[in-house]
Amino acid sequence: MAVFDIQPIVSELAYIRQQWRVAQGRPLESGGRNFPSPQALKAIIKDLTGILFPMRLGPIDLRQESEDFYVGHTLDSALHALLSQVKLELAYQHRQAPLDADTLEQQSIDLVQSFAQALPEIRRKLDSDTLAAYAGDPAARSVDEILLCYPGVYAMIHHRIAHEFYKRELPLLARMSSEIAHSETGIDIHPGAQIGEHFFIDHGTGVVIGETAIIGNNVRIYQHVTLGAKRFPADPDGALTKGLPRHPIVEDDVVIYAGATILGRVTLGKGCTIGGNVWLIHDVPPGAHVTQAGYQGTTSSDPACIAENGNGVQIRQR
Amino acid sequence: MAVFDIQPIVSELAYIRQQWRVAQGRPLESGGRNFPSPQALKAIIKDLTGILFPMRLGPIDLRQESEDFYVGHTLDSALHALLSQVKLELAYQHRQAPLDADTLEQQSIDLVQSFAQALPEIRRKLDSDTLAAYAGDPAARSVDEILLCYPGVYAMIHHRIAHEFYKRELPLLARMSSEIAHSETGIDIHPGAQIGEHFFIDHGTGVVIGETAIIGNNVRIYQHVTLGAKRFPADPDGALTKGLPRHPIVEDDVVIYAGATILGRVTLGKGCTIGGNVWLIHDVPPGAHVTQAGYQGTTSSDPACIAENGNGVQIRQR
Amino acid sequence: MAVFDIQPIVSELAYIRQQWRVAQGRPLESGGRNFPSPQALKAIIKDLTGILFPMRLGPIDLRQESEDFYVGHTLDSALHALLSQVKLELAYQHRQAPLDADTLEQQSIDLVQSFAQALPEIRRKLDSDTLAAYAGDPAARSVDEILLCYPGVYAMIHHRIAHEFYKRELPLLARMSSEIAHSETGIDIHPGAQIGEHFFIDHGTGVVIGETAIIGNNVRIYQHVTLGAKRFPADPDGALTKGLPRHPIVEDDVVIYAGATILGRVTLGKGCTIGGNVWLIHDVPPGAHVTQAGYQGTTSSDPACIAENGNGVQIRQR
Amino acid sequence: MAVFDIQPIVSELAYIRQQWRVAQGRPLESGGRNFPSPQALKAIIKDLTGILFPMRLGPIDLRQESEDFYVGHTLDSALHALLSQVKLELAYQHRQAPLDADTLEQQSIDLVQSFAQALPEIRRKLDSDTLAAYAGDPAARSVDEILLCYPGVYAMIHHRIAHEFYKRELPLLARMSSEIAHSETGIDIHPGAQIGEHFFIDHGTGVVIGETAIIGNNVRIYQHVTLGAKRFPADPDGALTKGLPRHPIVEDDVVIYAGATILGRVTLGKGCTIGGNVWLIHDVPPGAHVTQAGYQGTTSSDPACIAENGNGVQIRQR
Amino acid sequence: MAVFDIQPIVSELAYIRQQWRVAQGRPLESGGRNFPSPQALKAIIKDLTGILFPMRLGPIDLRQESEDFYVGHTLDSALHALLSQVKLELAYQHRQAPLDADTLEQQSIDLVQSFAQALPEIRRKLDSDTLAAYAGDPAARSVDEILLCYPGVYAMIHHRIAHEFYKRELPLLARMSSEIAHSETGIDIHPGAQIGEHFFIDHGTGVVIGETAIIGNNVRIYQHVTLGAKRFPADPDGALTKGLPRHPIVEDDVVIYAGATILGRVTLGKGCTIGGNVWLIHDVPPGAHVTQAGYQGTTSSDPACIAENGNGVQIRQR
Amino acid sequence: MAVFDIQPIVSELAYIRQQWRVAQGRPLESGGRNFPSPQALKAIIKDLTGILFPMRLGPIDLRQESEDFYVGHTLDSALHALLSQVKLELAYQHRQAPLDADTLEQQSIDLVQSFAQALPEIRRKLDSDTLAAYAGDPAARSVDEILLCYPGVYAMIHHRIAHEFYKRELPLLARMSSEIAHSETGIDIHPGAQIGEHFFIDHGTGVVIGETAIIGNNVRIYQHVTLGAKRFPADPDGALTKGLPRHPIVEDDVVIYAGATILGRVTLGKGCTIGGNVWLIHDVPPGAHVTQAGYQGTTSSDPACIAENGNGVQIRQR
Repeated sequence: MAVFDIQPIVSELAYIRQQWRVAQGRPLESGGRNFPSPQALKAIIKDLTGILFPMRLGPIDLRQESEDFYVGHTLDSALHALLSQVKLELAYQHRQAPLDADTLEQQSIDLVQSFAQALPEIRRKLDSDTLAAYAGDPAARSVDEILLCYPGVYAMIHHRIAHEFYKRELPLLARMSSEIAHSETGIDIHPGAQIGEHFFIDHGTGVVIGETAIIGNNVRIYQHVTLGAKRFPADPDGALTKGLPRHPIVEDDVVIYAGATILGRVTLGKGCTIGGNVWLIHDVPPGAHVTQAGYQGTTSSDPACIAENGNGVQIRQR
Repeated sequence: MAVFDIQPIVSELAYIRQQWRVAQGRPLESGGRNFPSPQALKAIIKDLTGILFPMRLGPIDLRQESEDFYVGHTLDSALHALLSQVKLELAYQHRQAPLDADTLEQQSIDLVQSFAQALPEIRRKLDSDTLAAYAGDPAARSVDEILLCYPGVYAMIHHRIAHEFYKRELPLLARMSSEIAHSETGIDIHPGAQIGEHFFIDHGTGVVIGETAIIGNNVRIYQHVTLGAKRFPADPDGALTKGLPRHPIVEDDVVIYAGATILGRVTLGKGCTIGGNVWLIHDVPPGAHVTQAGYQGTTSSDPACIAENGNGVQIRQR
Repeated sequence: MAVFDIQPIVSELAYIRQQWRVAQGRPLESGGRNFPSPQALKAIIKDLTGILFPMRLGPIDLRQESEDFYVGHTLDSALHALLSQVKLELAYQHRQAPLDADTLEQQSIDLVQSFAQALPEIRRKLDSDTLAAYAGDPAARSVDEILLCYPGVYAMIHHRIAHEFYKRELPLLARMSSEIAHSETGIDIHPGAQIGEHFFIDHGTGVVIGETAIIGNNVRIYQHVTLGAKRFPADPDGALTKGLPRHPIVEDDVVIYAGATILGRVTLGKGCTIGGNVWLIHDVPPGAHVTQAGYQGTTSSDPACIAENGNGVQIRQR
Repeated sequence: MAVFDIQPIVSELAYIRQQWRVAQGRPLESGGRNFPSPQALKAIIKDLTGILFPMRLGPIDLRQESEDFYVGHTLDSALHALLSQVKLELAYQHRQAPLDADTLEQQSIDLVQSFAQALPEIRRKLDSDTLAAYAGDPAARSVDEILLCYPGVYAMIHHRIAHEFYKRELPLLARMSSEIAHSETGIDIHPGAQIGEHFFIDHGTGVVIGETAIIGNNVRIYQHVTLGAKRFPADPDGALTKGLPRHPIVEDDVVIYAGATILGRVTLGKGCTIGGNVWLIHDVPPGAHVTQAGYQGTTSSDPACIAENGNGVQIRQR
Repeated sequence: MAVFDIQPIVSELAYIRQQWRVAQGRPLESGGRNFPSPQALKAIIKDLTGILFPMRLGPIDLRQESEDFYVGHTLDSALHALLSQVKLELAYQHRQAPLDADTLEQQSIDLVQSFAQALPEIRRKLDSDTLAAYAGDPAARSVDEILLCYPGVYAMIHHRIAHEFYKRELPLLARMSSEIAHSETGIDIHPGAQIGEHFFIDHGTGVVIGETAIIGNNVRIYQHVTLGAKRFPADPDGALTKGLPRHPIVEDDVVIYAGATILGRVTLGKGCTIGGNVWLIHDVPPGAHVTQAGYQGTTSSDPACIAENGNGVQIRQR
Repeated sequence: MAVFDIQPIVSELAYIRQQWRVAQGRPLESGGRNFPSPQALKAIIKDLTGILFPMRLGPIDLRQESEDFYVGHTLDSALHALLSQVKLELAYQHRQAPLDADTLEQQSIDLVQSFAQALPEIRRKLDSDTLAAYAGDPAARSVDEILLCYPGVYAMIHHRIAHEFYKRELPLLARMSSEIAHSETGIDIHPGAQIGEHFFIDHGTGVVIGETAIIGNNVRIYQHVTLGAKRFPADPDGALTKGLPRHPIVEDDVVIYAGATILGRVTLGKGCTIGGNVWLIHDVPPGAHVTQAGYQGTTSSDPACIAENGNGVQIRQR
């Protein structure tokens, strides 16, 4: 006698899938999968990471004198693997009106070639991020420790790759790339966010940076910082309007301490400092120091709390 | 000559294990392991995930026309693998007074069969969660992106499975299941929590939902939200009383923004909104909007802050 | 025709690596990798975990009667694997003035042997942590569930190992060890932190404990707690002064609830309690209960909020 | 300094590849690989083996009640994997005048569908082979032992699959299939050989059966038996004429003992027996018993080497 | 539209399996697999090989000072894995009249314990085989090269293990063990064969040694040697009589050169030599040298060919 | 209670190892393993195979335009892996009088560099072997089929590599290399054998070619051919004299058919043909055709059998 009664469960699951497909307007009977594969992408990004930093994040037995061989071989292999994924995403985008095969192929090749050309600039920016981390963390012993160990740098490697996918209108690949880093680090940067050079996230768990955020050069943020949206406009049917600018602009040289929450399309002016746990939904002028006020544990004589401007933001002028 | 002096360390470790076993009343000399295996469970849940969503989370080469073959085969295999783990957990539960083999076998089969029958309902609820995410996140491009990429959905797949283990009094399997998702996503939902349909967690890192929490339909929460306990009653010996209702009740249509902390057996009434970083230990009436008041960065003219009821909760009536 | 034009990208990447090496004073042409490997370390720590808890975290088929065989064999193997990594780190530390091979070998052996001798004490402390978790969490069903499932214990296994590397001046191995746990659990404990016995972190995601923190016995903390630094003194060139005591001292029997942030070299006195979301940059006297005051959601009649001492800390005397 | 001087070797190898390509008329600069992959084929055949014998050679945890699920799922997956390989082989065959993509696709699908329809007949024949082995080997304990352990059956599973590829003019896939078995068993059956039912090869190492051999039903052969070609006609340029019938015809009910060598297009008549080490280049009449004559220990007057009549034993017709 | 039409093939395969089960008297509907697993056995034998020769065939990083830890741990693990396989085989043997669970368990434990006690004697004999190879092959450079590289020794490791299974009436495990070696080496020794000490097989491909062969000490054989059966008595129904002595007895100090075939229950007397390609179906007296006679390539003055006794065997007296 | 009584077996095994070490003059207490690793070597040879034939035996996704990158990277990696193995073998060779570390390192580097320089010549010879196979087998459809499928070519890839190790006095690595091919193909070529260009082994199972054999250009052999030694001279103590020339010399353009056995330091003259199953221990003049004579199955009118010279060799003059 069979141990388990499987058939009714199989049928019921099939029935529910059928309902979903009807509701979503999907084909009911046959066809293959046409999404990019997170597993395949993970392997590609691992290769790209090695290509960008061969002697630190590439194969353990690599030697400097044969770096170019390794980079060239791995790049060719990674780009062809990426080509397959790009074709899947393009086909998915055009599932209602499929591209002909040649167009799909050529568009995919062009996208991948263009992505590849961005790699040197990605490396240059990541070098600046590494230096920023070394400058910003007294516990850091060496630039190598940072590249090998710091989750903030790991997240930025993924973000700077994901952002290139996003710019080329490959949102699934972009999102999958950023979620790899989110899962490993607890740092959730939407691939749409624009981030300058010398960017450093310390500790990082709980950081959220939204799709339309714009961050200048030389910015430093800590764990639990949110650069989020305040509200989501909806159209008359109640559907959310997608793509509007709705996250903060952070200018150069800003520092945002742990737990601060900045919401909406506000601007943090050049060189300002946002204190820990601060909750901000207004602009901050350049050079200002914003802190929590009146919260338990801060004496009224704290020099960080001496002024408040018209927006109710407490600011200490430099 | 030996490089390392191993024997004294082996002996000392054995001595400490002995002490532990004496203190815990465990057998000292022999016997095998009788816990379920997290690794085995991880593989089972991966199979269950494929069974629930074959064309999106199943094998990459699966085609729609042979879904039922795949589902049936994988289900049979996963249920037998689960049967082994259930037997281990039952044996562990009864380690003081072991069940006879036939009883253990039959109870385990019954539990697994009953679990399997819950799978279609799990899928139905997860479909509703996916739709809720699509409706609730302006950055979402498609329902497929959500299932493939969103950590909140990943966490809910695991929770809805874990909760079925919990209901069948398999707390180790339940906890191991939820910790798989916790580790991947930073979302920590106790398997005991009761969660309705159309539930959406955005970003998710840092979310904590306690064992006795009850959540209605159509609820949306953001990163760092805690639905926790306020205090733990202890018995006269100082041991914690286990199992008492101690976490919030969240009614239908509630939204809880990032960083809010709700503690204790309070009720958030239908349709209310809890603002970011709010700290709540009292009930909230239906339809109320609760925000932080007086905190730095909020002007007193913010319409969200115009009223405060007797409980010290600031509420804006709709 | 070639699908992608690889060579210019390879060349450009080589040029940027060259720039980095020049700027960092690194050798330009040849040489192998001389960092420890995170992957190798991960395998070593997995073995050490099995050595410490053979019947719960060791191989699934192990039986108690042959534990010592397993422990002895695995220990020998793990220590030799560790020896390779220690030699890599020592060589890296001395890369400007390389040690001769015999000195390097002998120093490495001494470090590993000394590390090995710390293992029994690590186990003893971890047993106390497990008991603390069982006593502190009403949802815990057994001590075994805690060791198998709780991320806080997983983090402490890694921390107690990492701290032994840190004490032996192996900062890369120490940091890699703690980042393994950080990635899995969202708990970020710097390997330099000194932590006593019976330590329990519940939920854990978002916890940050800094390099010079000192924690006594019987301390309990929850998710999102930060024991951080307030400011970083810099030398006249603007470089951060490294290694100064800059994180809190937490005395015995302290409880710190979720989201609390304690910054700077302050002391939390024996037996005090820090409420959720509290932001603290001053000392707290023994036995005090510190909570958020005046924040939304706390009634003024809450007995937790009745007094405030000179430091602006609200305290309820026991 | 680099340890090894790699570049000159890379260049020299490139030069030799160039020479080969010029000599073989191959493209010199670019292009991907267009051969089927032995590794991919090996996985496909492993799946086909499970499909043919699910409860004995399929997954270890399969249960009879869900065989059809397993067979259906694995068949679909294996056929699509085979489709990729068939397309590679067809493209290779037509490399001088490539097929258009649709034709290639459709021809490949037709070949694979037709192959799939042959599977039940393959199973039926393999069942007969298993019964033949059981009947023919006094050391066999059960039919299951034969299927699980006997290299002769393993070789026939591969041959019967390879022969279907051969019949569909897929010589590379056919040859790769037979070489998998050759490597595992030392039994070398060309995929072109036609073999009837109830065929049994005992021990098997060293057996060689040529491309145009034809074997009837109920034939039994032992290790080191060769059914080979005697000579290869060449055309006026010295190139071998390919495809001519040049290997033996073995009629029903023949037994060929170890080490016998039968060369050329000879016919072994129904029910004849060929003794060990016999070397044969002539036809043998039905029912005859052929043995070595003049072998060590047998004089030319040995009564075993004269013609013998009525009982059909030991005949040497010159 | 579905690419392939799967369902009719699934049904047809099911029908053929049904026919087989009816013909073999097997259960038709449900049930799991109850054969030992060749893959599981392969892993067990790999462990046993390491246990027998830890420093040469055990883990690459093992050191002599911790051999006993390794041996003890691996032995315990391997014996428990073997216990599972033995239970499967016993259950298979008793499938018509199943043993009760306790009897099955206890009989299996007894068989495994008894097997384990044979391991030291196996090692002792294999050491003698290694010495025999070193003494017998002028190309051997060291005893270590022999253990690491020689297929004859690899085959004997498997045979001496398989023979212990055979003696304990576990024919499936025995046969699977010997087929592992057969596949790797082309040496086919039936597990029933009894082989003395100091046994050496050089080159080995094509060697066949039958079930009831008995081989003394200090015997050396070369590739393609067959110790086979001459004929198989059948009972009145035509079924082969199983288990009768039907293979040669080879006394001490015999050498058998490549390609020799010895068939039937004959005795090769102590110290005799059998020349290459000799075909023998009669006894050979002690000390005799048997060679091919009259074959092409041997001059009549060869001293090896000077005498022939009454049995037609050419013998040179020592 | 423990299931198995392990300790006595561990002790007995330790005692037998002790006996072996005493007898072999090995260190008794401690130390690591100092043999090359067959597994490591297998991976190295797999890489070398890809380096030699990148588009046919290299990675499946390689494209011609990036061959040099692949070859360069893999070569560097494979040579460093080989360097480790060479150091192990040199250390083993000098285990009685260890080399100092620098000498060991430098000698190893020199050996590996010299080996690497032989690779282009190896490829050139293997191309000639492939062409020889295509010319010699009427069943071959293309040169690619031969490289991808023919065991004879696989064996020659390994032999030509193994022979380079042999020439550099690395007998363990050489032997391990040839045994990899022996196990896969049943073709046993001692690494010492000297083999010219355009060499083709068809079918191959059972071929044995001895250490001091010398084979010219354009030679073709079939399955079961042995080029062996006739007898082994021993010194007065009975130990075999190692290294003497004792295997055949085969001149250019010779063909040796299946099963032929050629023993001793004889010479097969240019262009001669050796028939199937022939047993030869004398020289053969150039151009001769040697066949079995008088055996059953050869008619006396066969033109291959018309003459016999003084050596008892039957020859048909060309």
